[in-house]
Amino acid sequence: MSRVFDAAEVAKHNTPESCWVILYGKVYDVTNFLSSHPGGVKSILRLAGKDATEEYDPIHPPGTLEENLKPEQCLGTVNPESLPKPAADAQKSEEKSEGPPPMETLLNLNEIEQVATKQVSRKCWAYYYSASDDLISKRLNNEVYRSILLRPRIFIDVSKCDLSTTLLGHKVGLPIYVSPAAMARLAHPSGEAGIAEACRSFGAAQVISNNASMTPEQIVKNAAPDQVFGWQLYVQVDRQKSENMLARINKLPNIKFVVLTLDAPVPGKREDDLRSDSTGAKLPVTSAESKKDRNDGERMPDGTPALKSGGVGVQLFAGTESRLTWKDTLPWLAKHTKLPIILKGLQTHEDAYIASQFTPQIKGIILSNHGGRALDTAPPAVHTLLEIRKYCPEVFDKLEVWVDGGVRRGTDVVKALCLGARGVGIGRPALWGLGAGGVDGVKRTLQILAEETRTCMQLLGVGKVEDLGPQHINTRIVEQQIYDGPSNLTGFRAAKL
Amino acid sequence: MSRVFDAAEVAKHNTPESCWVILYGKVYDVTNFLSSHPGGVKSILRLAGKDATEEYDPIHPPGTLEENLKPEQCLGTVNPESLPKPAADAQKSEEKSEGPPPMETLLNLNEIEQVATKQVSRKCWAYYYSASDDLISKRLNNEVYRSILLRPRIFIDVSKCDLSTTLLGHKVGLPIYVSPAAMARLAHPSGEAGIAEACRSFGAAQVISNNASMTPEQIVKNAAPDQVFGWQLYVQVDRQKSENMLARINKLPNIKFVVLTLDAPVPGKREDDLRSDSTGAKLPVTSAESKKDRNDGERMPDGTPALKSGGVGVQLFAGTESRLTWKDTLPWLAKHTKLPIILKGLQTHEDAYIASQFTPQIKGIILSNHGGRALDTAPPAVHTLLEIRKYCPEVFDKLEVWVDGGVRRGTDVVKALCLGARGVGIGRPALWGLGAGGVDGVKRTLQILAEETRTCMQLLGVGKVEDLGPQHINTRIVEQQIYDGPSNLTGFRAAKL
Amino acid sequence: MSRVFDAAEVAKHNTPESCWVILYGKVYDVTNFLSSHPGGVKSILRLAGKDATEEYDPIHPPGTLEENLKPEQCLGTVNPESLPKPAADAQKSEEKSEGPPPMETLLNLNEIEQVATKQVSRKCWAYYYSASDDLISKRLNNEVYRSILLRPRIFIDVSKCDLSTTLLGHKVGLPIYVSPAAMARLAHPSGEAGIAEACRSFGAAQVISNNASMTPEQIVKNAAPDQVFGWQLYVQVDRQKSENMLARINKLPNIKFVVLTLDAPVPGKREDDLRSDSTGAKLPVTSAESKKDRNDGERMPDGTPALKSGGVGVQLFAGTESRLTWKDTLPWLAKHTKLPIILKGLQTHEDAYIASQFTPQIKGIILSNHGGRALDTAPPAVHTLLEIRKYCPEVFDKLEVWVDGGVRRGTDVVKALCLGARGVGIGRPALWGLGAGGVDGVKRTLQILAEETRTCMQLLGVGKVEDLGPQHINTRIVEQQIYDGPSNLTGFRAAKL
Amino acid sequence: MSRVFDAAEVAKHNTPESCWVILYGKVYDVTNFLSSHPGGVKSILRLAGKDATEEYDPIHPPGTLEENLKPEQCLGTVNPESLPKPAADAQKSEEKSEGPPPMETLLNLNEIEQVATKQVSRKCWAYYYSASDDLISKRLNNEVYRSILLRPRIFIDVSKCDLSTTLLGHKVGLPIYVSPAAMARLAHPSGEAGIAEACRSFGAAQVISNNASMTPEQIVKNAAPDQVFGWQLYVQVDRQKSENMLARINKLPNIKFVVLTLDAPVPGKREDDLRSDSTGAKLPVTSAESKKDRNDGERMPDGTPALKSGGVGVQLFAGTESRLTWKDTLPWLAKHTKLPIILKGLQTHEDAYIASQFTPQIKGIILSNHGGRALDTAPPAVHTLLEIRKYCPEVFDKLEVWVDGGVRRGTDVVKALCLGARGVGIGRPALWGLGAGGVDGVKRTLQILAEETRTCMQLLGVGKVEDLGPQHINTRIVEQQIYDGPSNLTGFRAAKL
Repeated sequence: MSRVFDAAEVAKHNTPESCWVILYGKVYDVTNFLSSHPGGVKSILRLAGKDATEEYDPIHPPGTLEENLKPEQCLGTVNPESLPKPAADAQKSEEKSEGPPPMETLLNLNEIEQVATKQVSRKCWAYYYSASDDLISKRLNNEVYRSILLRPRIFIDVSKCDLSTTLLGHKVGLPIYVSPAAMARLAHPSGEAGIAEACRSFGAAQVISNNASMTPEQIVKNAAPDQVFGWQLYVQVDRQKSENMLARINKLPNIKFVVLTLDAPVPGKREDDLRSDSTGAKLPVTSAESKKDRNDGERMPDGTPALKSGGVGVQLFAGTESRLTWKDTLPWLAKHTKLPIILKGLQTHEDAYIASQFTPQIKGIILSNHGGRALDTAPPAVHTLLEIRKYCPEVFDKLEVWVDGGVRRGTDVVKALCLGARGVGIGRPALWGLGAGGVDGVKRTLQILAEETRTCMQLLGVGKVEDLGPQHINTRIVEQQIYDGPSNLTGFRAAKL
Repeated sequence: MSRVFDAAEVAKHNTPESCWVILYGKVYDVTNFLSSHPGGVKSILRLAGKDATEEYDPIHPPGTLEENLKPEQCLGTVNPESLPKPAADAQKSEEKSEGPPPMETLLNLNEIEQVATKQVSRKCWAYYYSASDDLISKRLNNEVYRSILLRPRIFIDVSKCDLSTTLLGHKVGLPIYVSPAAMARLAHPSGEAGIAEACRSFGAAQVISNNASMTPEQIVKNAAPDQVFGWQLYVQVDRQKSENMLARINKLPNIKFVVLTLDAPVPGKREDDLRSDSTGAKLPVTSAESKKDRNDGERMPDGTPALKSGGVGVQLFAGTESRLTWKDTLPWLAKHTKLPIILKGLQTHEDAYIASQFTPQIKGIILSNHGGRALDTAPPAVHTLLEIRKYCPEVFDKLEVWVDGGVRRGTDVVKALCLGARGVGIGRPALWGLGAGGVDGVKRTLQILAEETRTCMQLLGVGKVEDLGPQHINTRIVEQQIYDGPSNLTGFRAAKL
Repeated sequence: MSRVFDAAEVAKHNTPESCWVILYGKVYDVTNFLSSHPGGVKSILRLAGKDATEEYDPIHPPGTLEENLKPEQCLGTVNPESLPKPAADAQKSEEKSEGPPPMETLLNLNEIEQVATKQVSRKCWAYYYSASDDLISKRLNNEVYRSILLRPRIFIDVSKCDLSTTLLGHKVGLPIYVSPAAMARLAHPSGEAGIAEACRSFGAAQVISNNASMTPEQIVKNAAPDQVFGWQLYVQVDRQKSENMLARINKLPNIKFVVLTLDAPVPGKREDDLRSDSTGAKLPVTSAESKKDRNDGERMPDGTPALKSGGVGVQLFAGTESRLTWKDTLPWLAKHTKLPIILKGLQTHEDAYIASQFTPQIKGIILSNHGGRALDTAPPAVHTLLEIRKYCPEVFDKLEVWVDGGVRRGTDVVKALCLGARGVGIGRPALWGLGAGGVDGVKRTLQILAEETRTCMQLLGVGKVEDLGPQHINTRIVEQQIYDGPSNLTGFRAAKL
Repeated sequence: MSRVFDAAEVAKHNTPESCWVILYGKVYDVTNFLSSHPGGVKSILRLAGKDATEEYDPIHPPGTLEENLKPEQCLGTVNPESLPKPAADAQKSEEKSEGPPPMETLLNLNEIEQVATKQVSRKCWAYYYSASDDLISKRLNNEVYRSILLRPRIFIDVSKCDLSTTLLGHKVGLPIYVSPAAMARLAHPSGEAGIAEACRSFGAAQVISNNASMTPEQIVKNAAPDQVFGWQLYVQVDRQKSENMLARINKLPNIKFVVLTLDAPVPGKREDDLRSDSTGAKLPVTSAESKKDRNDGERMPDGTPALKSGGVGVQLFAGTESRLTWKDTLPWLAKHTKLPIILKGLQTHEDAYIASQFTPQIKGIILSNHGGRALDTAPPAVHTLLEIRKYCPEVFDKLEVWVDGGVRRGTDVVKALCLGARGVGIGRPALWGLGAGGVDGVKRTLQILAEETRTCMQLLGVGKVEDLGPQHINTRIVEQQIYDGPSNLTGFRAAKL
């Protein structure tokens, strides 16, 4: 029934007028789909006429083909004999042939990142490692923790030390959760489901990325009955898509909340990611063609197109809505899910205060600068925690405040908890763990952080997460860097939205 | 009619008593001109008897010969066959033969500077790169921006983001303008006109240097009807020269304002520039000769001459007036132009305040430390912005306040705008762009900055330039470095000029 | 009478079911002892069937075998001919064959550490050098001294300068004492007794580690009649052991006080030390075996064992009590010794204040973060000194306040004294001295510090230790980093324990 | 009349019992002088039996032999043929054979230091370069200037700029003077007289070191009639020596004042200097011999001798009085000279205030930490200037306040003047200038500093030294580091001396 193509024949269809690609051994005619590809026409044309499986697979969850192509667009199968043999990247494969060292020999999260850097592809590394502009926020996210000192107390029984806590009322084994981070299968075939398996071992919560490389159903499939997940929502310009996804999410009992990400209405400029992409780099500055085939509305005064294409990050961003407002978005969301909402990406006390006016729909906020990937020189979550403590501490009573960004040590976790954070997210570390050793690598990552957190609490003389407080840390240095600006309590509290 | 000389004959006239040079194939006797050369006698004597075209051309605008020499000083032409073949600098030309990479592959301004560094001559690099003494102000100009944090707001519709604004009432496409910087043809033959062409694409304003390597008429020749230019004035000791130039400027409708530069009544000490010049370096410390042939009036107590000669910067400076005062200069200027005046090089709130008393003749001020090229450890413009905000914020209502120095990222542009700057100038970046890729290099420079600026505004939740304000930034660290000195409001406001 | 074994026969008994080891030429069956070994079963199994003397000797004081094994567990002797020849580590022995340079050529403590690093084994270096996590506290301990400036006075007769002072009323030659530091024989066979010999030369006090590699009786054996020692107590879970040790200590007249260490109820994470240990590194992450043979009660939520084993530090820690409290521990201690008690490891003013309520049993406190080896980013002693001065200076009147950590120069000693410290401890420097040159190395260490201290006092214009005061130092930079937190005088003074 | 010795015979007299040395071709029996040598017995014994001229000459002014030895101690002359040929240090001489580059090619003081480092002997370099302990004060001396920002004013006529000023009422061409620094002939044979020659060219003042390698008479011999000198006094234990020197000084009309140095009652620990000396390094730690042959009274509690010998600095210090007090020293000094007294080495506002009570005998003070060579982490002069401004500004009205330490740029000079300094001293730079190029090197040093100072003043808009003030600088960063201690105005003003 199915026609069998020779690779050479497929190779002829490599133009916008006739564009075929091979995926999982099948031949597809995607000519009509080109213009609606969220990642842009060029990222397909680059693979036109070729076997695109290796590039396609790790960044598209199953079902993507079925959802976007009609059955008749599948023309048949390819004769595998006719495909070119993969040209082994000698050096690379040699490096990798060693494989990673045993996970238990890795003593800290930096070592895990180093191992992962050697294990994963250049493209994968660039996507995970990259941050905006000069990586100032990325670095500051971590350094700010180092400038906070701890205040250990003595003569306290610390023989028992319990890391468990609750997030939105759900019991979790650790105050550490895995932040939504896209494209886990770039790092390891077990992907987001592998992270879930590791989280299960520790009772840790996980937020599934809107751009996960697996479906939510796959990710939660083997979850423990009480395992806690959230789902990250980037509202799409095509609202129906988001509504469909929410309908699916509402049916998954392990998913306890929706995380609406707000810190990236447009993508940040991640140069390492841009450099790893060969498409964007070749766009001419002012060619008429490029002007024609782009429709993002962003042009220089003379019509020169904006040059943002390129990089995994920008491709993933395609289709994301940049017009969200307090007034319109939350009511729409209420219509499509009853799950509690967590707003992610708050970076000022003003927004934290406004969010606290939207209970009970909003149950929590995540202070985050997107791992330094959105706006460079945006403040670390620790700054925003201190801003809230300074200007509107009542927010902590109305909402759960979570943080992410820069957490690499158990002492970092403890410092965030002392400042009022209820959950502490890790993004890149979970992915580096996955890249270094798959499920075991993520487990090792969580184990190291959990042990360091426990040791830190014991040495502080604290046996329970809820007993940690600002009296256990000295934030004097950071306090001197906190916004002291024109805002005043009356002012921002009366602010119109 | 014209006599033809052999190069060997010209070569004999290489002394102060008889000094000939070859320029553009013609032979000139410049013996009588030696003592009045603004760049000093030595810079001519070094080339005496030789073809000086390559050194002369990029630093003298057309018309310079005609203006300074009498017709009879042109003795004839040189026989081109008799000229020595240029000894190709093997390594250099090999490097250059590659040419620069495509401009669109350059992702940020640092990469453009790196490419330009390889493309331009050592002399050109030294002139552009150099700054005073230990380059402390040059570095601080940039680093101060990095110590300011941004405060992104969420849930704001940023689908539309407009970079256009006005400068002195003239509509411009960007809040970014090109600062006056001399000798653009050192970097690329398209020179200042090439910068103008790039600015035209973006609707960006440009200030033409007093020491441009092209005439103002040439630079504005292909300007768009509404393209905005300013012209920089260094008042000359020989006032007539300045008056003549002003008369020419008054006739060029694209030139909308005059920028009077005040931060360099004497030249700064730019060691990289000095090192690239072989003339100055050979002056003996105390030779009687050197005492005789110098007449700048600056001597050590024992008559030892000051050793400031050398470097492009010092040569350009020759003839500049160091006796300007508020009382005398502004009325003189009013007699020679009706164009609005912008004062450039203010570095204290006291001077900003005084300037604000001279409206309407003065319409704006540029806070600038001359790119760190005048006085090392002079304050960056950000400091002066914060000083004005602290001591006399009413200045912002009376004058337009522009800044330059150290701007390398869109976030830098936005931070300056948030602090009250109306225009943000780039000096070296435009020249590096020109050196890296000619007109396309400058376009790429402006495009990168414009896109970064737009991205930053969108991620801050701001759609228009005028909506940026101090609430969008955290300047706490810099505030702790701002002058807190003996001045008080009453005091400096009552100050005699 | 004693049976003679061939090494090959002993080698067969290398399992948990039958575990023999050779120590000092004798063969022991330690099968029954395995489960009760404080350092864990694995550290013995690793040496099962082998001659363990070289590993055993430097970390077990004499009498350990007799105390823990029954006579019948000694099976006989080994035939020395049958033992394998030590495989000389060629490179290592070559390095060492040079031996250290003469001690008097070493000019400062850094040079002594450098020499010691080359002289001692990798394991020894790792144990001494290591500190927790990222070594932030270790570095800060030293750097904080460098940020304090001195204030030398002039026109004061400094011809006489006396370094002697008193500690708890006992005359000592120096305000510098040797902190308790374990396992001195790792560095040099003369061990803790060698340190005592050096201290004798300078009249310096020494605190004997709870984990010394020699018995207290051996260490004080050749002490001068008035030589001052303290003994460090880590309370053991098996209290009887601690009581037995206290009974021995009470009988040694040179031991004048007991130092109860409280800053490490659980061991810190010293990665250099962990890395030097091959046991811990091989534990699988989740093996069923490892779950069974561990009984420390610390497990991840899924039963994954904590991975803290490994490293000399962790082995030494085994058996230490983590349930001590003010209420229970001090009365118990009073029953077992009349010696004055010094509490070690205080890091907050709150604990210093509480301790001051427990006079006269408690006579002093040592501000210490355990050389940065317990909790990383814990505060240096200088911070705690300044905290006490800020919140409860009366503590200095009630207790002697000693400090340790980071002292490498005489100026460091003087700065601590100026802030109110009565004794200034050195830990690693004494061990590095021992490693570099045995007794002479420790003498050289003390001599350098003493001379530097004297020179500093003379240049400050101070002739006696008790005349040093806060007027001699400028701590402005550090003051800006001191805890400014929620605590207030009323609050913490009324605190329940 | 004079006996001629063979070198071989002299060589036999190389013991403490019979010690001969060859100096300038003559043979001396110094056996009886050994114990009274200010530089210690060992520094002579090391050269016993040999030609000591090369080591002796640059550190002993003429007349030293005559002053210390009786005529009969000169035994005769040495047969020059019998002396060993100097073993040329091949590499060194090769390096030097190039000689320094022309002085006028050196653009700043760092370049001059680099050239000098290559030109001078290792011993010379070590003596000049060295500073105490970790060189923290040495570095801070310079860095503190870099953290002060300038505040340039515009629209001021700076065509005339006069660097001249007065010191103690004497007209000088520059506000820059040469600080007393010992042993100039180590760097260059022209020695201190060469510095004087350079100063003459600029009308700069010079303070002659107490340990100059030439006599004061030699140094001032070719001075201009109005050339200004000071003479530095280190009071000797043998007061008669100091009184004799003062008598000589009183007779030299160019010497206008006496600088009494007070910041080094004992020598600092300059490790680079100590390392360059082979004597000290060989002293055994506890040998009985070394105990016997030392009599400096400084011993460890067990009699271990202090190990301070070694290094040029320590040898020069021998014989210096450490018992000076306000009460005793000033009246004694008044008896022996009518010259105005400048106290050097003040580092606190308290001492500056006390000094101001001793007018008119004391006419000035020099804020100095001895170039970082006395006490490490002592404050830079800028700190003390700011302390005086903060606590007792009236001192500036009563005394001239001079500073030295860390001045390397004209901007540094200007900043010190703005803070109230009247004179700004350079120590090492004059010596590096001498080492780099003899008299021309010092001239070049002064010329660079003078030009940089003039440029800085002009760019600030200041034409005269006396018009510089605190309004021209921003010291905000340094102000936050100034002593804020227990002192209060009432307190220290009432202080007993």
